[in-house]
Amino acid sequence: MKIDILTLFPEMFTALNQSMLGKAQERGLVTIETHDFRDNADNKQRHVDDMPYGGGQGMLLMAQPIFDTLAKIPHENARVILLDPAGATFTQKKAEELSKEAHLIFLCGHYEGYDERIKTLVTDELSLGDFILTGGEAAATVMIDATVRLLPGVLGNVDSHEDDSFSSGLLEYPQYTRPEDFRGMKVPDVLMSGHHENIRKWRLRESLKKTRDRRPDLLETADLSEEAQKILAELS
Amino acid sequence: MKIDILTLFPEMFTALNQSMLGKAQERGLVTIETHDFRDNADNKQRHVDDMPYGGGQGMLLMAQPIFDTLAKIPHENARVILLDPAGATFTQKKAEELSKEAHLIFLCGHYEGYDERIKTLVTDELSLGDFILTGGEAAATVMIDATVRLLPGVLGNVDSHEDDSFSSGLLEYPQYTRPEDFRGMKVPDVLMSGHHENIRKWRLRESLKKTRDRRPDLLETADLSEEAQKILAELS
Repeated sequence: MKIDILTLFPEMFTALNQSMLGKAQERGLVTIETHDFRDNADNKQRHVDDMPYGGGQGMLLMAQPIFDTLAKIPHENARVILLDPAGATFTQKKAEELSKEAHLIFLCGHYEGYDERIKTLVTDELSLGDFILTGGEAAATVMIDATVRLLPGVLGNVDSHEDDSFSSGLLEYPQYTRPEDFRGMKVPDVLMSGHHENIRKWRLRESLKKTRDRRPDLLETADLSEEAQKILAELS
Repeated sequence: MKIDILTLFPEMFTALNQSMLGKAQERGLVTIETHDFRDNADNKQRHVDDMPYGGGQGMLLMAQPIFDTLAKIPHENARVILLDPAGATFTQKKAEELSKEAHLIFLCGHYEGYDERIKTLVTDELSLGDFILTGGEAAATVMIDATVRLLPGVLGNVDSHEDDSFSSGLLEYPQYTRPEDFRGMKVPDVLMSGHHENIRKWRLRESLKKTRDRRPDLLETADLSEEAQKILAELS
């Protein structure tokens, strides 16, 4: 996968060179390149923003630097994604969809806004959630992280994202590791029993309980087994 | 405001030293410190994770390194925030709430999970949305960005976040800056008219139209003026 990022702050993406994403780049599973669109501003002062027509607070990103930066990147079959709080909400399903693409381009805005004509360049407008950021950079980092970890070979164990929250449609059950007794807090007996079937049932029950208590909306769309439906009925 | 971050990847937070958040730190409006909890692992190998009791994929963060790192940070009145996909969803309202605190501490997990007993340390469990990340780092960066920009003095103009999407309960209207004609795409006439009242009405109408088309759920909770309600009725 190839990822291009158009931004005024390329240094904000050093997080993508760390941890699992850094390893994915080293192994050639993904190539990530940032492009500072200030380099393509066609004025001597390299200005990239100007005042809004019709008045109002703040400065808006101008169309020209972004148009000309994108024109230099071959992007025939790319998804061109604008980070915008009014866009479609980014979810795990969207991450899965993006992970199947060969080429993603992220346009990072500016907290005060941008010229509407920039939208003629994009295939997708995506929002991370109902909150406002100083720019699209942190949001793009999150979307890239969620997408790249789904690429084949990025996670050490190919199965290890199948148990995640949301992948099953349920929140994850509580987990414990050593020691068995940590400062007086003990691991539930069932997990120490070695009885696989009881452990499986306990985990399913805990997942269902947590999802019902915290995110009942997820139960409406989750694909529940007969067993899960029965446990859920017992819980209420 | 003081912000402490417990993480295995302190280098992932260099984005916070850039742009507006970097300036906020330089001006002493916020102090951000990262703590690598591997430094407090009480074993020679500095291991911070181990296998889950009861079996299963992946490695879980152990309680001890996180407990002992937090114990070294004075945090009597701090909000201790665990990043977790099963937590409450982070929104602009949550950012406003956090921006009123003096001390925030973020605990960044690991994509494979952590020992449940870590939750006894926290005051809040927050999620950025319905997707899975390789760790909590990118999510914490987003929450810190959204929160710090609301601190008095961080934005150049104190009023400039009042027009944002979500602050008014509506999505933002389209904006335009120079030139008036960009490669054949023109700025709407009304914005060039200089007629302030017409501009105000056009913007309100565009905000309402966009919100109705893209996020009708926001209209249910928005505090709409009589004028806005009338326009909305005309639109449908």
